[in-house]
Amino acid sequence: MIDQLVAGIRKKQAPIVVGLDPQMSFIPEFILDRAFAEHGETLEGAAAAVLEFNKGIVDAVCDLVPAVKPQVAMYEQFGVPGMQAFKETVDYCHEKGLVVIGDVKRGDIGSTSGAYAAAHLGSVKVGEAVLTPFGEDACTVNPYLGSDGIRPFLDVCKKNGKGIFILVKTSNPSSGEFQDKLTDGKPLYELVGKMVESWGSEISGNSGWSEIGAVVGATYPEMGRVLRDVMPKNFILVPGYGAQGGRGRDLVHFFDNDGLGAIVNSSRGIIAAWKKDEYVSCGASGYAEAARLAVIDMQKDIAEALASR
Amino acid sequence: MIDQLVAGIRKKQAPIVVGLDPQMSFIPEFILDRAFAEHGETLEGAAAAVLEFNKGIVDAVCDLVPAVKPQVAMYEQFGVPGMQAFKETVDYCHEKGLVVIGDVKRGDIGSTSGAYAAAHLGSVKVGEAVLTPFGEDACTVNPYLGSDGIRPFLDVCKKNGKGIFILVKTSNPSSGEFQDKLTDGKPLYELVGKMVESWGSEISGNSGWSEIGAVVGATYPEMGRVLRDVMPKNFILVPGYGAQGGRGRDLVHFFDNDGLGAIVNSSRGIIAAWKKDEYVSCGASGYAEAARLAVIDMQKDIAEALASR
Repeated sequence: MIDQLVAGIRKKQAPIVVGLDPQMSFIPEFILDRAFAEHGETLEGAAAAVLEFNKGIVDAVCDLVPAVKPQVAMYEQFGVPGMQAFKETVDYCHEKGLVVIGDVKRGDIGSTSGAYAAAHLGSVKVGEAVLTPFGEDACTVNPYLGSDGIRPFLDVCKKNGKGIFILVKTSNPSSGEFQDKLTDGKPLYELVGKMVESWGSEISGNSGWSEIGAVVGATYPEMGRVLRDVMPKNFILVPGYGAQGGRGRDLVHFFDNDGLGAIVNSSRGIIAAWKKDEYVSCGASGYAEAARLAVIDMQKDIAEALASR
Repeated sequence: MIDQLVAGIRKKQAPIVVGLDPQMSFIPEFILDRAFAEHGETLEGAAAAVLEFNKGIVDAVCDLVPAVKPQVAMYEQFGVPGMQAFKETVDYCHEKGLVVIGDVKRGDIGSTSGAYAAAHLGSVKVGEAVLTPFGEDACTVNPYLGSDGIRPFLDVCKKNGKGIFILVKTSNPSSGEFQDKLTDGKPLYELVGKMVESWGSEISGNSGWSEIGAVVGATYPEMGRVLRDVMPKNFILVPGYGAQGGRGRDLVHFFDNDGLGAIVNSSRGIIAAWKKDEYVSCGASGYAEAARLAVIDMQKDIAEALASR
């Protein structure tokens, strides 16, 4: 995973991942109408709309970015048909050569964590057949349960050349309630960051970067600076750009001197760009073109911030 | 949710939840053969086997216990067909009058957490239709992201009379790596427990118990004693009985003086009982009867421990 991601970032000069988090309100009327005409106002209809919407976005941005990050909750809310749309989204993004990071934030223990790892990054044995359930390249993982929850993911990553991004410091306002608590004089997120470094040291790509990365919110740039040092060989997946308030200048400390080490996510800032003042001239029918323009603007914002640091 | 659970525990005299975590190795050959004959060695075949296995267990224990806890990872590993089996398991358990606790350990922020809450405890609006994605009565939630992750679940619980169990102190050996860290002189799990008490005070059932409960592992009885006091009105869902080493005598401090306040989960100890020495005479064809006997023995073990404290 990590070598493909690094190569993609270098080639496209874009440390950007597009969050495919399709809320119903982001999807233009004409797509909803078509899906409901075929499937009715059903979970199948919602799932069909989500998938068509995603394909339009992916077609418009796949030459600009190395990766996408579908947020599984936005599919799971449409039940079984939603999970089918998630799977088809993963497959479609693979056809377009993108690294797919499943934003699933799973976390459990032992054989249960192993089942999640198999579901998203591995395979299952059914009789003599070896089958791929969802098949992302990487996924996000919650660390609250400790090593017992992480190790089954490490095993699957090692075996299949996959990666994970472990939640360290999340982008939301209340993330500090537990993550910032001081323990032995250091905040908990720093302890989790140290564990990420340790877990990650077992699995490195040829690029020198580890397959095991971290999630650190763009909304906490100072903590990003500390965590960059704590985890020198671990990629940081940075949510919170755009809609949550993060800007290119907040992100410079997440990157190393070569402009690597971080990949910045934007979801609604890109996929719902057609509803923003800057891109409103694209219209609903130009929602994908608006997404493309938003990616280009984001790329410029980050490049300028990195150039002027 | 909570009043139905309390009434069920009282009526059946069993503070027991059966964990429906069907690993392939737990499923008798004759069920696998039948499923593979119909669907091949496919994800659909695995899902069909899981569903038939579950129905046998549920038929055999539904008059003895108030609740079941399907572990979604064990379904998710079989992809979209697995999620279909999860949904059908939930529906089947509802037909049998059981409270269904989805062991999903989800956790995210804002609209994403709202989407998970809708997926498992609520409904989604598709056009003018209001649809139920998975429809459990309660689910487990991971607290690492703080209040922003919990509040959307609270809103859905309030609106729909549902409940959640928040991970506080998990049953696994490495749970202490983060959960036991001292912060302001107290372990983190205690701080999380206090938050559970505070979140839960907003939503009480007529029984006086909150719709918001906690997960505390049977493997840490001393911590259970502390957390019982910290969360006097919050039910504790207790994993770790049986296969993970917990016994009735370890559990007495999780209960209040009336024998309420806790519900103890056993998964493989019940659903794979037919593979254990004690119940091997049931044979593979009697796997459901073995599960029934294991529930009766567990009920007795807990009742004796509570009587002799």
